[in-house]
Amino acid sequence: MTGTSGQDARACEGKEGKTKEELELASAYVSDAQYNRNVFFDTSPRAVSLYLLYNRRLLRVSVYFFILLDLSLAVCEEPAVWPLPPWATMLAELLCLHVFALRLVHYAKVIPRDKFWKDPKNICMMAILALTLVDMIVYGALHAAGFYALRWSRVLRPLLLVNVTEGRQLRRAIRSIRNALPQILSLFLLFIFSILIFSLMALKLFGKRGLATADGAAYFSNYGDAAFELYVLVTTANSPDVMMPAYDAGSAFALFFIVYIVVNTYIFMSVFLAVVFNNYKKYLKEEVRQLVRAKRRKMARAFAVLRELPEDGGRGEPLVGRASWTRLVRSVRPDISRAHTELLWSVSDDDNRGAIDERSFVQLADLLNIEVITLKSRPHPLDRLCPAFYRSAPSRLVRRSVRHRAFAAAYDVIILINAVFIGLDEKQPMIANSEWGFLALYLLEILLKLYVIEPRTFFSAHSFWNWFDTLIVVSALIATVVNAALESSGGYTSRQILDIVFILRVLRLIRVVDSIKRFRTIMNTLIRIGPAILTFGQLILVVYYVFAVVGMELFAGKVKFYEDAGDPARLDCGNALLRGSAFARLGYCKNNFNHAGAAFVLLVQLTVVNQWHILCSGFTAVTHESARIYFVLFHVVVVIVVINIFVAFVLEAFFLEYSLDKSDLHTELEKKIEQLQLGVAQDAVEDNLVAAMETSDHEQPAEQSESAAPKLVFKIASKRYRTVDALLQRLFEADLEREDADVHDGDGNFANPSFGAA
Amino acid sequence: MTGTSGQDARACEGKEGKTKEELELASAYVSDAQYNRNVFFDTSPRAVSLYLLYNRRLLRVSVYFFILLDLSLAVCEEPAVWPLPPWATMLAELLCLHVFALRLVHYAKVIPRDKFWKDPKNICMMAILALTLVDMIVYGALHAAGFYALRWSRVLRPLLLVNVTEGRQLRRAIRSIRNALPQILSLFLLFIFSILIFSLMALKLFGKRGLATADGAAYFSNYGDAAFELYVLVTTANSPDVMMPAYDAGSAFALFFIVYIVVNTYIFMSVFLAVVFNNYKKYLKEEVRQLVRAKRRKMARAFAVLRELPEDGGRGEPLVGRASWTRLVRSVRPDISRAHTELLWSVSDDDNRGAIDERSFVQLADLLNIEVITLKSRPHPLDRLCPAFYRSAPSRLVRRSVRHRAFAAAYDVIILINAVFIGLDEKQPMIANSEWGFLALYLLEILLKLYVIEPRTFFSAHSFWNWFDTLIVVSALIATVVNAALESSGGYTSRQILDIVFILRVLRLIRVVDSIKRFRTIMNTLIRIGPAILTFGQLILVVYYVFAVVGMELFAGKVKFYEDAGDPARLDCGNALLRGSAFARLGYCKNNFNHAGAAFVLLVQLTVVNQWHILCSGFTAVTHESARIYFVLFHVVVVIVVINIFVAFVLEAFFLEYSLDKSDLHTELEKKIEQLQLGVAQDAVEDNLVAAMETSDHEQPAEQSESAAPKLVFKIASKRYRTVDALLQRLFEADLEREDADVHDGDGNFANPSFGAA
Repeated sequence: MTGTSGQDARACEGKEGKTKEELELASAYVSDAQYNRNVFFDTSPRAVSLYLLYNRRLLRVSVYFFILLDLSLAVCEEPAVWPLPPWATMLAELLCLHVFALRLVHYAKVIPRDKFWKDPKNICMMAILALTLVDMIVYGALHAAGFYALRWSRVLRPLLLVNVTEGRQLRRAIRSIRNALPQILSLFLLFIFSILIFSLMALKLFGKRGLATADGAAYFSNYGDAAFELYVLVTTANSPDVMMPAYDAGSAFALFFIVYIVVNTYIFMSVFLAVVFNNYKKYLKEEVRQLVRAKRRKMARAFAVLRELPEDGGRGEPLVGRASWTRLVRSVRPDISRAHTELLWSVSDDDNRGAIDERSFVQLADLLNIEVITLKSRPHPLDRLCPAFYRSAPSRLVRRSVRHRAFAAAYDVIILINAVFIGLDEKQPMIANSEWGFLALYLLEILLKLYVIEPRTFFSAHSFWNWFDTLIVVSALIATVVNAALESSGGYTSRQILDIVFILRVLRLIRVVDSIKRFRTIMNTLIRIGPAILTFGQLILVVYYVFAVVGMELFAGKVKFYEDAGDPARLDCGNALLRGSAFARLGYCKNNFNHAGAAFVLLVQLTVVNQWHILCSGFTAVTHESARIYFVLFHVVVVIVVINIFVAFVLEAFFLEYSLDKSDLHTELEKKIEQLQLGVAQDAVEDNLVAAMETSDHEQPAEQSESAAPKLVFKIASKRYRTVDALLQRLFEADLEREDADVHDGDGNFANPSFGAA
Repeated sequence: MTGTSGQDARACEGKEGKTKEELELASAYVSDAQYNRNVFFDTSPRAVSLYLLYNRRLLRVSVYFFILLDLSLAVCEEPAVWPLPPWATMLAELLCLHVFALRLVHYAKVIPRDKFWKDPKNICMMAILALTLVDMIVYGALHAAGFYALRWSRVLRPLLLVNVTEGRQLRRAIRSIRNALPQILSLFLLFIFSILIFSLMALKLFGKRGLATADGAAYFSNYGDAAFELYVLVTTANSPDVMMPAYDAGSAFALFFIVYIVVNTYIFMSVFLAVVFNNYKKYLKEEVRQLVRAKRRKMARAFAVLRELPEDGGRGEPLVGRASWTRLVRSVRPDISRAHTELLWSVSDDDNRGAIDERSFVQLADLLNIEVITLKSRPHPLDRLCPAFYRSAPSRLVRRSVRHRAFAAAYDVIILINAVFIGLDEKQPMIANSEWGFLALYLLEILLKLYVIEPRTFFSAHSFWNWFDTLIVVSALIATVVNAALESSGGYTSRQILDIVFILRVLRLIRVVDSIKRFRTIMNTLIRIGPAILTFGQLILVVYYVFAVVGMELFAGKVKFYEDAGDPARLDCGNALLRGSAFARLGYCKNNFNHAGAAFVLLVQLTVVNQWHILCSGFTAVTHESARIYFVLFHVVVVIVVINIFVAFVLEAFFLEYSLDKSDLHTELEKKIEQLQLGVAQDAVEDNLVAAMETSDHEQPAEQSESAAPKLVFKIASKRYRTVDALLQRLFEADLEREDADVHDGDGNFANPSFGAA
């Protein structure tokens, strides 16, 4: 029915097809709307073509590749993990700079000149490129002349991630931090005031008592140290040590510290989280609200390009016909199947008019973002090759038993037994040999499943656990075989290979989580918010990189680690200033800034906070008291601001997950799939997310495969949000319904929402 | 105008006055609604009288006094801070038990028998009393016979706080934790599974490498220890020490620990917070919603008691007349002034009908909860005693300059100079003497302010900073004089008095916070949510008490502290098993369970988490490995559940603070005050909370005092919520507006909302 009416529509529209240019313009708008790009591009046909090229995945990926290359140069520059001569790294950097410059020029050609020069991210980008170039020239000259030279522009590299066109989310996160800063600053000053007041009290109470710490050092003897000690106490890193001398001297002094901890550690830190969270939510929501509005306007512009005036000369609303719509969808998403396109059309054109109005058209951006999996239910290859055998009674029995619940349960038991065996000593021959047995069992499981389930279905993109199992088992098999071969050939065991074997063995046990329902729901939520956490990972990377580069300049080579456990230099980390210090005594020599890798590990330790004052004391001992500034600054930036943003982010994502239902559009699409009898049972799928990645769901199409012809089945992938944006946008869709009217106010020419500088 | 119409109304109603019984019943309902008591009392006149008695503040306070007495017995029981013979403490406890039993009997007489026996808090209370009595008898008998006996019922004592009628909020908090438990448990099991998997991996990777920790102990050599070490790593207490041996052996192993920390410390812990927060909000909101509904029903019942049928025989809505209303308000709040009552009436009877309908009547409970300050603007006593002098030109000049902004600024500068002086060495005679100068300056400030502002206004209940200043300065003066007297008499200085002097001096500096506007707003929020935090304090007290009692039974006397710094026993805390342990080396001997005080301090340290594994290792060394259970349990209960509830609570309170505007009722009351021209400038008052506690506001009435007659001025105390309930109820008021209709459905007899057992 849909088919014929569609043909009618196509027939009656054919006469006024849209030009290629119009189509490109429309698809540029739609693709912008779909990916929330908020770019005010030039609408001339040439610019539009260039813009479509600009957004090609290949180009975007390669930009990120070169950024990564540029960032990873730190590993090969002095102080280096793997040293390369300066000319090599500088050549590589020059290449990267060229790529970024080209990309920028491309961008400049796409958007109007005045917009380009008003956009702070472009200015920043040019500044970064220019400064880096200047630095490289100066460094090259000084280096050639044999002077000491500093590659200071390295701290600018992570800013590339922020200022590149694709760094939208990162820019937004940074903007929301910046907007929250005034409030955070007020709170921070009050917090510092509180610490200073307590320090003064501590100085007066304990300074004159002649107490000593466990190390024999003077206790609260001067104001600066007192303030630092109490700042460290806020992070709890020196609790209870800082309190013990006073507590030993008089029990009542414990009160001082308890009040201090309650006020500063508990109340102030909670309030920091509250302020960060509140501001984060407020600004992010405001920005996302603007984004949703921008998206709708983009779609309205696309509609304006494609609309056909009604035939009765002006009356009636403008519509977009099926032909233009289909060409548009094909050009925006060339990867989706014809059947999928038809499905989307039938959702948009719900009442079968053969054309859609603006309201339905605007939904397209969201429709395209709903992941629809097209399952081709094919017969099993064995069924095709030798049906007599595959359909015989014993074969049917095997297939039925593999599908039975007991099969999965049996394998859960096997995994548990395996866990016990792993825990036992693998030196025992019985235990060592049992490993082969378990490997065989796991292989058998995979083969049996492959026997039952059509292989392409088994290994479809969404079958997470199938992929996981197969990868783990096959690599464990390979590693174990290699290991056994090495062992039997020369009695030699490679530690690395053994380590990998062990890790793979233990990873196999994770599978059990999927079998327990109460775990599954939590895992789903975690997996669902997982991708969105990556934005946050970029933010951490930027901050870490800057601190690592600065740290390497300040502290590289001051503290050394000696591999040889017997080396006496290990006692003072190769620096006499550290002799007898807590830093050396606790064996922290490898926590240094001697290369980018070590610096990153050290920064992680500082983020974890515990013992950061010992690490700090080590570096102040080999340099100067003022090195504390670096460590305190890191704590304030990373732990008080960034980690709180992270917690705020996880909380918000969790709350959204709990409060969001399926969108109307989602439901509509589902309904349509059901109507057309193209779906697999939705209940089973939507029940939980892992289901979508689970074998059991794929069995249903496989079951139907008993009938001859390959049949097409659609399934909506469970709602998973690739970005926080997507999550938040869903939240505001309801809010914005009523603003719909304002989508096409004005002349369709909308301003680029300006969020201020990045 | 209000007055005359009021008189008319009174005249025409006089004929059908309400009986004393009816009034008592109504006031019981209103007072229940006002304080959110959800008690289904018997409506017989005798029961109502008893119920009003039951709710008397004196009785409620005395119950809490006896609970406190009962709890504080722990300080005098073996192991004791101040030992008392067992008969003395048991006599005291017996007295407490009697009080609780009497209170329970009183309660039983107030509410219907079937309700009493169905209420779990009563059953719990009786069980606690019975068990305590049994324990005391058994203990007494065993003790008399010379056997070893255990006072196990002491762990039940904190449950009194929960099960007493007034422990509503605590019960609610505990219920919301209990309701969240299933979800927390799932997450916790997954978290434990993750730790176990990582432990297995650590065991396989590091166990066979022959590595050693900084202490020379074996590294990840058995599964139990590995799991414990990694659990400790989640709390970050042994970071980075636990990682160093592996990291030293191979840099790549750092990855294992980083992944572990990201997954378990960051993601899992954030998700714990999210789950606790989400459940807390969900259940608490549901309960508070029920409470608001119950409140309205109580008010509807009160209305049903007091309503007078309209005179035209049945038609028209029932109303409550002014006479009954006034008597009701007088009996519910005998403390508020006649003028205040009239103000409330004029708000309720907005259109001057002389009687109010149910809708207006229901508001009364909320109206009574808005703190209205009645300021009597009296002339300054000096003005009365010697007006010629007080009104002379020099006196006016003094008064004007004290009120000037520069006066406050000058004192801020003085405080800052004082801060510097405090920081300097007080042994120098110049510095020591300057203290007298500063004291004199502060005294002068207070005297000058008293000269300008009417003393009773200056010391009104809401003038927080005036009270603060005066208390601090006067006590500093007394302490300094006593100290100087002691010093000059015998050259002897009391350390205690000096300590107090120092603390008072430093506390004076806090005043400066109030002068800085950006600090003031934050302080206001903190002060506003402060009282609500007390509920949380009770929860912590309950948990601490139970753990302290159990801890004392398990570990008392195992670790000893020796006052004498030279005592060799100090090196092993008097227990040979601790010789050379980290516990003794770090000087943690005083962190023991030898009496309730020490136990509380130790539990605070465990709550702060840092070094808890060292504290734990000390107690496992002197007892048994299984002592770890106690410490891990404490961590799970206090840090994972209770502290997260605390953070959730602060976050929620903060968000509510940000999102709540003034209630309609609040605004209405304000408008009325303004209309009647009885107010002080509201803008200045509502701007921020501290303003309400600040001198400057009280200056305005003082200014008006130049005119002769004492005039009445009202001011609404800034919105401050005494409880979380009040905060949350405000949130739901809007929600419940539309449910108003269902207030008087049924026969006015409403069920006691049952929230399950406490």
